[in-house]
Amino acid sequence: VITDPGGLAIGVDVGGTKTLGLVVGPSAQVLCELRRTTFQGQLRDGGARVVADLVALLEALHEEAGLSLGAHPIGVGLPGMVDRSGRLVYAPNLPSASSSSMLELLQEALGAPLSLENDANCAAVAEHVLGAGRGHGDLLMITLGTGVGGGVIHGGLLFRGGRGFAGELGHMVVEADGPACPCGARGCWERYVSGTGIERMARQATEEGRLEPGAAGASLRAAELASLARLGDDAARGIFESAGWWLARGLANLVGLFDPTCIVLGGGLSDAVEFMLPTIEAQLPPMLEGAALHPVVELHPAAFGERAGALGASLVARRAP
Amino acid sequence: VITDPGGLAIGVDVGGTKTLGLVVGPSAQVLCELRRTTFQGQLRDGGARVVADLVALLEALHEEAGLSLGAHPIGVGLPGMVDRSGRLVYAPNLPSASSSSMLELLQEALGAPLSLENDANCAAVAEHVLGAGRGHGDLLMITLGTGVGGGVIHGGLLFRGGRGFAGELGHMVVEADGPACPCGARGCWERYVSGTGIERMARQATEEGRLEPGAAGASLRAAELASLARLGDDAARGIFESAGWWLARGLANLVGLFDPTCIVLGGGLSDAVEFMLPTIEAQLPPMLEGAALHPVVELHPAAFGERAGALGASLVARRAP
Repeated sequence: VITDPGGLAIGVDVGGTKTLGLVVGPSAQVLCELRRTTFQGQLRDGGARVVADLVALLEALHEEAGLSLGAHPIGVGLPGMVDRSGRLVYAPNLPSASSSSMLELLQEALGAPLSLENDANCAAVAEHVLGAGRGHGDLLMITLGTGVGGGVIHGGLLFRGGRGFAGELGHMVVEADGPACPCGARGCWERYVSGTGIERMARQATEEGRLEPGAAGASLRAAELASLARLGDDAARGIFESAGWWLARGLANLVGLFDPTCIVLGGGLSDAVEFMLPTIEAQLPPMLEGAALHPVVELHPAAFGERAGALGASLVARRAP
Repeated sequence: VITDPGGLAIGVDVGGTKTLGLVVGPSAQVLCELRRTTFQGQLRDGGARVVADLVALLEALHEEAGLSLGAHPIGVGLPGMVDRSGRLVYAPNLPSASSSSMLELLQEALGAPLSLENDANCAAVAEHVLGAGRGHGDLLMITLGTGVGGGVIHGGLLFRGGRGFAGELGHMVVEADGPACPCGARGCWERYVSGTGIERMARQATEEGRLEPGAAGASLRAAELASLARLGDDAARGIFESAGWWLARGLANLVGLFDPTCIVLGGGLSDAVEFMLPTIEAQLPPMLEGAALHPVVELHPAAFGERAGALGASLVARRAP
């Protein structure tokens, strides 16, 4: 039970597999933490099950911390396109809640106001305000996980775009005749630099005999590949170098478009970032417009791991009018 | 001679081949116009010649309109990366002035204050405030010419990025193994959708016998190709369809990143836009994230032709603090 509840805020990050809830103190310290499995079913219930799960988590979190629901700002990060009215317009990783008016449903079920935002946008706010991007008013946050997410900070504020959908980086096409993506396009950035993309490259390397197959002859997961790279395995390192080149290629596009002074790399694939960072640091500067004439763009691994989204959601809630 | 000089502003657009100066009235009417050839030499004079030419044009323009230099705001659009201090950091199409402190040099030579901005950013401001993008706070302006330029409006303001370089759209790589670009990369968007890109596709079609060669056996220019398309030539129309597909592909990337509610297509290639627009209108919506679930993004040909940059520069000057 938290004895001094002054300046607390609640942040929740609804991930593709798990949902994390935090009670965050006035200097952003995590005071209480709760984790639940995210409902992934294809129910056509207009988001009712996801809403019920979220309300249950929020109630449990408040109870565990000895707080009253509604007494402190609540922010929720969702995996998908959240519009300015709080509608979850499209969310392939939260199918049963896709196309539903999440803000309205959640506030009604909870009986308390809250703020909704895209999950990667929340992570960007956390890294900008408290993390690796502190002091940079123009910042790009890239979350590398199963897919690739992103958040853009401009002039110290979240860049939301016209509808609230800005910063959807994963499906930027970088090779129009590249491998097919479930989204329908070919050569999305995500096909090269996400966990899925890296596993695709590992599978290809295994098929071509450049990489030993995994335990049961299965192809290697990104985390196993990172362990191999840590042991000095050349083939594994080569795959991360290749992914690093693609990361640099996409980042060069994004620097030309958004002109950040700093890029923060985070997400579930953080373990693998160390093997890609040297390649990115070498390849990115000559790819920028003007090359040597282009001012330096700082590159940093994220300060917050898997908590960035929930922490950022609590900050978004704090800032909400 | 302009008899009522109240609320006038001066706008200059320094293009790759010519420079256009305008005296613009309070309701954005063009009151006086002057055109000069842009100095394109490779002199290592730190921009002195370009500055002298600009001062001469501004003096002549003021004299012709009967105005005193310094009495009205002056805005200048430059083809290249202009940083927030007014330095022209990199300008491949204005080589002798590249890397020089243009704002300082110009103000000193002119003896009057002025505003500097990237040329495509100026065009975006013109279309946003007065043109085809009126009423859209989040707008993307694409200028199709020899190359491809862009300007982004967010929340009714020019999106400048951290250094002032944001919106460099032409060198967004959309096909990492595509044709080589003078910038050093491969598969820049510009290789497909600019005048140069369309001429490249026409040359390829001629070589493959799908398109009749031009007058002297030379490959066709984009304008000739547009004339052929207007006459119903299938091969010419096919090339614009192909360019239209690439335009849609790049625009889909940009919509995911910037989330505009409106896209304005302009620039020197405006004549050809009519042959690409039907393809873009058909191809873009299914390429957007969420496809049918994605709110409509309006597409409009620019309202201002070759004057957009200079007109926008006058508006930038008016808004300057």
